[in-house]
Amino acid sequence: MTVTTVPAYAAPAPKAPLERITIPRRPVGEHDILIEIKYAGICHSDIHQVNEDWGQALFPMVPGHEIAGIVAEVGPGVTRYAVGDRVGVGCFVDSCRTCANCLAGNEQFCEKGMTATYPAGPDGQPTYGGYSTHIVVDENYALRIPEGIGLAEAAPLLCAGITLYSPLSRWQAGPGKKVAIVGLGGLGHMGVKIAHALGAEVTVLSQTLRKQEDALRLGADHFHVTADPATFTELAGSFDLIISTVSANLDFNAYLGLLRVDGTLVNVGAPAEPSAVHMFSLIIGRKSLAGSMIGGIRETQEMLDFCASHGIGSDIETIGVEQINEAYARVLASDVRYRFVIDTATFAN
Amino acid sequence: MTVTTVPAYAAPAPKAPLERITIPRRPVGEHDILIEIKYAGICHSDIHQVNEDWGQALFPMVPGHEIAGIVAEVGPGVTRYAVGDRVGVGCFVDSCRTCANCLAGNEQFCEKGMTATYPAGPDGQPTYGGYSTHIVVDENYALRIPEGIGLAEAAPLLCAGITLYSPLSRWQAGPGKKVAIVGLGGLGHMGVKIAHALGAEVTVLSQTLRKQEDALRLGADHFHVTADPATFTELAGSFDLIISTVSANLDFNAYLGLLRVDGTLVNVGAPAEPSAVHMFSLIIGRKSLAGSMIGGIRETQEMLDFCASHGIGSDIETIGVEQINEAYARVLASDVRYRFVIDTATFAN
Repeated sequence: MTVTTVPAYAAPAPKAPLERITIPRRPVGEHDILIEIKYAGICHSDIHQVNEDWGQALFPMVPGHEIAGIVAEVGPGVTRYAVGDRVGVGCFVDSCRTCANCLAGNEQFCEKGMTATYPAGPDGQPTYGGYSTHIVVDENYALRIPEGIGLAEAAPLLCAGITLYSPLSRWQAGPGKKVAIVGLGGLGHMGVKIAHALGAEVTVLSQTLRKQEDALRLGADHFHVTADPATFTELAGSFDLIISTVSANLDFNAYLGLLRVDGTLVNVGAPAEPSAVHMFSLIIGRKSLAGSMIGGIRETQEMLDFCASHGIGSDIETIGVEQINEAYARVLASDVRYRFVIDTATFAN
Repeated sequence: MTVTTVPAYAAPAPKAPLERITIPRRPVGEHDILIEIKYAGICHSDIHQVNEDWGQALFPMVPGHEIAGIVAEVGPGVTRYAVGDRVGVGCFVDSCRTCANCLAGNEQFCEKGMTATYPAGPDGQPTYGGYSTHIVVDENYALRIPEGIGLAEAAPLLCAGITLYSPLSRWQAGPGKKVAIVGLGGLGHMGVKIAHALGAEVTVLSQTLRKQEDALRLGADHFHVTADPATFTELAGSFDLIISTVSANLDFNAYLGLLRVDGTLVNVGAPAEPSAVHMFSLIIGRKSLAGSMIGGIRETQEMLDFCASHGIGSDIETIGVEQINEAYARVLASDVRYRFVIDTATFAN
C-alpha cells in the first residue's frame, strides 16, 4: 500500500468549527499496522488544542487520541498484531526509543519529544489524529484491547483511563487507602471506577450535588460538595491520595489540608496560570503536590488489561461525525456523561 | 526535687536582645529525667520565633531546641535512662501519644498539637528551651546520643540533623541516586554530610562560589552556582531528589526543571509567602513538590545512631552565653560555618 487518502474531520484554523476533509496516511511500513478506526473519543484537550489554549498549533488539525479499531493490514516485519486484532492508539505514536525515559517505559516523557498522535512530531511534521476512518502506526505504539471491553467504551481509556490509572497505581491506591477524586467529568469518572476496582475507599469531591447519584453508581463510597466550606473542616486530614482532574486553578492549600500525613495531591488537570502554594501546606504533614501525564506503553497495556478484567469501560454517548461541533459545545458546558465517542461508521453517511 | 529555678537566656519581648534571667523547671516526675544541659545549638528558627516572624509568641522566651547534655536525675518510673547517660532533646517534649500520628511515630504532627520545647504547649502553658543549664523532660521525648559524637557536635543534629535525615531517608537517597542540596547553611551542610554517608551522589546548589571548597570537603561531589542561569539548562533533568533548605521564595518551577522523571523537590525551608507553582512543572515528568518538618522520636534516634556510626556531627563554632546576641546577628548575615553552639558552662562565668 502506498500513501493513501482517507476522510477525516479537521479544524481548518485555530478556533474554527471542524469540517470534513481528506488527509494522507503514510504507506504501511515494515513495522506498521493499518488500523480501521471504529471509535474515537472526544477529549477536552482536543478542544484546547483546536483553540490553541496551550500555544501555537498546526492546521488543518485532525484531533483525536482516544482511538479504538481493528487491524486491517500489517507490515512484513510486524510480530505483535495480526489482521482482525482489536487495537487502540493513545496520545503518542512514536518516540526516540533510546533515551532513559523511553527505555524505562516512560515514552510520554521522551527526552527527544514524543511524536504526538496529533498535531505534530518533534520534527514539526504534521500528524493526524483519530477523527478519521484509518490510521497507520508502528506496532510498538499500538495497544491490544482485550475482549471484555466494547471498542466504543475502550476508546476513552487510551487517554482518560491511563491518565487516572497511572497516578492511582504509582501512589498505591488500594485496600485500606482513602482516595478522593476532585471533579466528576471524563477523567474523574474513570478515576472513580479504577480506584474502586483497585480496592480503595473512594470519595468524590464535586462543586455541587448534581452528580452525587452518578458518583455512587460509578463506585464512590462518599460524595462531598466543595462549594460548602464545611467540607474542608469535616474532611481535614482524611485522604492518603487526592487526584484533581480539574483544570481550573483550585485553592491547592485547602485541598492539601484534606491529606493525611505523608499524603499526596496529584494534579492531572492543568491550570494555565501558576498556582499559589504555601510551603507550610506541604511541610506540616510531610505532604506532596504532584503531577502526572498519561502513561507509557507498558503501563497503558497494563491499564487496559486491568480494566478488561474488572469490566471497566468509559460511560459514553456515541455520536456521528456531523455532531462533533455540537459535542464540543456540550463538553465546554459540562453537558456530557461522561465521554463523547465518535462512531466512524457515520463517515459513510 | 520540687520546682527549682535555673539560669537561662531569654528574649524579654518580641525582637528584643536576649538577656540572662531565671526560670522555673518542673519537679522530676515519675517518668521524667533531669538533664544537665552541656550544649545548645542556635537554630535560625530561634531568631524567627524571637522576632515573631511566624505569628504571636510568648515572652519571656527561652529559645533552644538543639539540646545535648547528661542525665543528672531520674524519676522513679524511668526505665530508658540512668544518671550519667548522654542525651538530647529536640523540637518537642511531649505529644498526645494516642492519635494516629503519634502512634505511627510522627509525633511532630500530633493531632492534638505537640508540646514544643519552647515557647509553649498546645494548652498555652509556657515551655522554656535549651539556652539554660537544666531541663526536665519525659524520658520518652529524650534521645540517646551514642558514643562517637561529641555532645557539642551532636546538639545541632536534634533539629538540623533530623530535618535533613528525614526527607533523605523517606525519599530514599542512596547509592545510584543523584541528590541536590539547595543552600549550604546549618541545614544544608548536614544534608551534604548525611546524603554522602547514605551513598548518594551529592550536588550543592548555592548562590555564589563562596562555599565551594567547604561543600567538597563536607562530602559533595559537585557544586553549581544558582546565580548563573546556565546551571538550570546544564543540569536540567538531572536529580532524583532536591532538598531546598532555603527560606527565601525560590523560583520552584526552575528547580523542578532540574528533576528527572518521578523526581521530588522537598522544601524544608519555609517561605512566609505562597509560591507560584506551575502545575505543568509537575505534570511533565510526573514530579512532586513536597515538604518535611523535623522527624518523630524513633526516626530521630535512628538518625543519631546513623550519624554516630558514620562519624557525623555538625560543623560548629562554640560560643559563650554572653555572645548569643552577637551570634544572632552573624546568623542573619550568614556568617557562620555552620552552627553556633552555646557552651552552657559559661553560665558560671
